Formats: sequence, structure tokens, C-alpha cells
Amino acid sequence: MSALKGASAPIYFGSFIVTPQVFLTTPLSFALVNLKPILPGHVLVSPRRVVPRVTDLTPAETSDLFLTVRRVGRMVERVYGASSLNIAVQDGVHAGQSVPHVHAHIIPRKAADLDHRGGTDAVYDLLDGDEGDLAKAFKETGAQDADQAGNESVAGTESEKRRSRFPVVDNDQRRPRGEEEMKAEAEMLAREMENEPLD
Amino acid sequence: MSALKGASAPIYFGSFIVTPQVFLTTPLSFALVNLKPILPGHVLVSPRRVVPRVTDLTPAETSDLFLTVRRVGRMVERVYGASSLNIAVQDGVHAGQSVPHVHAHIIPRKAADLDHRGGTDAVYDLLDGDEGDLAKAFKETGAQDADQAGNESVAGTESEKRRSRFPVVDNDQRRPRGEEEMKAEAEMLAREMENEPLD
Repeated sequence: MSALKGASAPIYFGSFIVTPQVFLTTPLSFALVNLKPILPGHVLVSPRRVVPRVTDLTPAETSDLFLTVRRVGRMVERVYGASSLNIAVQDGVHAGQSVPHVHAHIIPRKAADLDHRGGTDAVYDLLDGDEGDLAKAFKETGAQDADQAGNESVAGTESEKRRSRFPVVDNDQRRPRGEEEMKAEAEMLAREMENEPLD
Repeated sequence: MSALKGASAPIYFGSFIVTPQVFLTTPLSFALVNLKPILPGHVLVSPRRVVPRVTDLTPAETSDLFLTVRRVGRMVERVYGASSLNIAVQDGVHAGQSVPHVHAHIIPRKAADLDHRGGTDAVYDLLDGDEGDLAKAFKETGAQDADQAGNESVAGTESEKRRSRFPVVDNDQRRPRGEEEMKAEAEMLAREMENEPLD
């Protein structure tokens, strides 16, 4: 069941069905809330078509994706009372990508928001540490995986590498959120998107 | 003087004139080589109009910027023999932005490329440490600054914060490159862009 009125076909993030987490669909993209947000309002934007690399996108998909990033970024910055945004794409496995489906992270930032976790730039350690490992997070929660045999071994190896490289900064944040909590946030953000200008 | 044939008006990155570093212009964007690349082929893509935030861009500027990121990313991945890309925008000062002009970092990545500097994700420490501080780098080299009185105090403060938070990972890489070296790379990349499909 979707947080979006009138949505029908399931929405895939890699091999995972994420329909209840989706708060916006556009002709070629969608935006979803995160299982383990690094900071409040940390969301993802992906193309509807499941492809791993930015270069795999058509020009129309590329434009739609980043116009959606711009609109969603403006919305989460407003809703979560932030003043800046980190926008990051790990484009390929050697750049730290865990789920082989293009996705832009949008992370609302404000002054001193990560001072207790290592400072402004701790966001990157968190993004690339255990908390940012989307594939692992989905597997832990038993989220619907349409392709159980998927990329587990590759993702597992990469995940192990990342874990060994970065200390876990904040254990108490690491519990994946429940589906109800994510769906409630997705519904709230879907309403907020209605207040966001198209341009 | 420009690395680009036929370029005329100076090109600004924030208050800095970067014309010799520019290897591609599009109707609304440009791409430039870096003073202190974190890895070979680390380049930047910016809108022609000097605005600090992604939300300040028009939809046309946003599309042009990220279509340029896609094309330039494909080119540097090929030219530098990489297999992945980190794409990152520090959108606002609280996200670590040093020069108040929208810019996407594109960093070609390959397996084990940062193992000697801390692993795959050390790229983020480097991006946000001293090496990634573009404003400081420009000032150090005495690059032409069209607005000397610019954002120095703010940038200085932010830079100090970043330095204190992250250890300097690789001192031997920190020397800013000379203008001739950057111009030669920009000329090489300008030629390589001619081999890159428009779509």
C-alpha cells in the first residue's frame, strides 16, 4: 500500500519494493524516505527505471531526476528547518554504491547539527559507514526483496569493507525504522510536496 | 587566456577568474579542472551564473548542469581509466560549501584507489578536509580574485573548522598545481570532450 493517493504499480528500489516509503512520483523519478536517516529529512531520489549508473540514464531521465532533487531538497530544507543540503550520488560500486540503482542522497543540514557526532563533515562517514549501507538495512528489516538471490554476495563484501574502514559513530541511531513510521513520514512529505512550487 | 578555442569573456567561479582551467562550456554551465584534485580527473561543473544554491538555479540551468555532469563524468571515467564516480554538491555553507557558487564535484574512482589513504570512503574526508577547501586553495595560489574583499572571513572560519575536525591525510598531495599544469590538463580534456557523444 502506498503513501501516495492513486499510486498503483509497486515501486522498485533496486530489487526491493519500497512503495510505502515513496512520497513523490514524477514521470521518470520517485522520492522515498530512508530506513536509517543520517539526519532528519535524509531522503533519496531515484529514476523509475532500475539502472545502476548515471550514464545509463537518458537525458530526459537525468533532467527529471535532478529537477526532482532540486524540488525535494527545497521541501525537506523547509520542513526540517535546515539551511543547507548535502547532495551525493555514489555512482558505481567503487564509489561506495550499495544498491545498484541510481540514487541521489539529499541530507538537510543546519549549523552544528553533527557537532556531537564529529562535526559538519561527519555526514560523509555516516553516509558511507554502516548507517548508510542501504542494501544491508533493507535486508535487516526483512523488507520485501523481489530478487532475494540478487547482489547479496557483492553487497555483503562491499559492506564488510566499509564497516572495517569506518568506526560506527552512533550506535543508538542504527536501528532501522519500522514500516509504519516510514509510511507516516512519507504521507506527511507527500502533503508537503503539494505546497512546493513546480519550478 | 583560455584552454578553449574561441572563448572570449572571462569565466567566474565565485569571485575567481578561472578561464584557463575551463575545458568545456555549454549554454548555461562550464567544467573546470581542479587546483588540488583529490584523485586524478577530479573536476568541477558549475552554472555560468554565480549563485550559491541549487534552488537559485532555473529549471533550465539545473538540467543543463546535471546533463553536463553526466557527460563530463563519462569522459573523465574513460580518460582516467576509472570504473565509478563520486558526484557531490555541498549546497550551502552548513553542508561544507567553501566557494559560494553552485558546483558539483566529479571524482573518478577505481578499485582500491584510496587504500593507501584510508579506503574507498576516505574521498569524503579529503573532499571536506584541507584539500577540498577550494576557497583556501585559490587564495594560496594567488589566483585572480575579482572580489578580494569577498567572503574571506566566512570562508576562513569554515576552513578552520574543517581543518580542526579532520586530520590531513596526505600532505604530499597538498601543493596547489601551477597554472601551466592545469591549462595543459584543461586542453587535453577539451580535446577529449570532442569525442564524447552529446547524449
